[in-house]
Amino acid sequence: MVEGSKSLDKTLLLLTELLTCPNEATALQLAEKCCLPRATAYRHLAALARHGLIFRDRNGSLLPGTMLLEVFDQADFSRRLGEVGRPVVSALAKAVGMVSHLGIFEQDMVTYLTKSEPEGEAVFTRESHQLEAYCSGIGKVLLAGLSSTELDKYLSEGAFPSLTKNTITDPHALAKEIGGVRKSGHSVDCGEIEDTLFCLAVPVVDPKGRTIAGLSVSARTQELLERDRPARLLDLQKASEEISRLLY
Amino acid sequence: MVEGSKSLDKTLLLLTELLTCPNEATALQLAEKCCLPRATAYRHLAALARHGLIFRDRNGSLLPGTMLLEVFDQADFSRRLGEVGRPVVSALAKAVGMVSHLGIFEQDMVTYLTKSEPEGEAVFTRESHQLEAYCSGIGKVLLAGLSSTELDKYLSEGAFPSLTKNTITDPHALAKEIGGVRKSGHSVDCGEIEDTLFCLAVPVVDPKGRTIAGLSVSARTQELLERDRPARLLDLQKASEEISRLLY
Repeated sequence: MVEGSKSLDKTLLLLTELLTCPNEATALQLAEKCCLPRATAYRHLAALARHGLIFRDRNGSLLPGTMLLEVFDQADFSRRLGEVGRPVVSALAKAVGMVSHLGIFEQDMVTYLTKSEPEGEAVFTRESHQLEAYCSGIGKVLLAGLSSTELDKYLSEGAFPSLTKNTITDPHALAKEIGGVRKSGHSVDCGEIEDTLFCLAVPVVDPKGRTIAGLSVSARTQELLERDRPARLLDLQKASEEISRLLY
Repeated sequence: MVEGSKSLDKTLLLLTELLTCPNEATALQLAEKCCLPRATAYRHLAALARHGLIFRDRNGSLLPGTMLLEVFDQADFSRRLGEVGRPVVSALAKAVGMVSHLGIFEQDMVTYLTKSEPEGEAVFTRESHQLEAYCSGIGKVLLAGLSSTELDKYLSEGAFPSLTKNTITDPHALAKEIGGVRKSGHSVDCGEIEDTLFCLAVPVVDPKGRTIAGLSVSARTQELLERDRPARLLDLQKASEEISRLLY
């Protein structure tokens, strides 16, 4: 027990040193600051990273973990999500030849963090701009990730104006749609924003299974929601897991 | 090593469960959620509390630790500091029969979080209001807690208008004064805001030794800065340590 406590204290010392460090630090610098042998420090830091409590950026600098940003600092969290997600979204868009978006839920809207648009596949969205949640693929997976209380609030407060003949405007129908998304693990936008825009979206989840973002692909033909759905869902799920793996 | 890692993972699991828990949780609830024996969970939670990573409120609920608030959420941190500090400041004021303040550094000013005013000992300050840092006791300990870069910035940007004949208005004299505070561990306000107001202040520090607040007592006579100084400093230091102990 004493051994366990000592080991624990070393880990927590490394974590609090990192959090209170005025500048970025490397694993080696932290090991030295905490007077720990390098191998010991690396082992403890690996455990902290495994739980999303520290984050290693591309230069090897250690930063507060995504789990902590998620809880405490929405601005830093969004920035990191956008940065980490960009190459994955870009690779997905290129591989399937479709527009791909990564977005989060903010003030009852979807904020687009990252957009990748292969040549000839333009849509009207813009990064950092917001769009209604009730009529978009990403919006629906984000709504499905809310607690029942939050979703009830959204559904009771909102007006859901019709944008096309397919837009779901009735709160009860919307509640049923979101229930379906929760069960199937993905959502569709069947021409609900524009008559000829079709989207398929999946959630990006954190290690606790909470939805932190939505990832979508969009096309001008309905094939995406029919014949091509299984293959594109697989692509989306792989990309979503990749983003989550890079973040935590 | 495997045993050590397992133990570590249990602690970090408890921490991340607590951070991502939508409501307040008790130690028992967390133990159950993480499927840990009660005694094991309590031991791990004690280690987390020891490092300021979790905080137990008066009802036994566990909350994100003050160390984490300090880094990530200034508003929650200030609120907790004010709440935890209030009874200590009040007891100090009562014991010494003087006005006592607890304040933090915000936007180059001192924000008063807590004030306790024994009968017949009125001063003009008000809780949640701000006052200049350069001419107050709390302000000087807060300035002494800044990094050299931050202090240089403050001294080079500020205008330091004279409020009484004793106000230190020259940046070089102020730099020397702050240097003295760093060495002695306490500051004085010798009639620098009002001709007949004298203050003695000490820092409140976190477990890493960083200054998180200033604590002062004020009197209408200069005795506080002369004959009574050693005794009042001891009172202040005890109260400061008590606040820090309650916070982390």
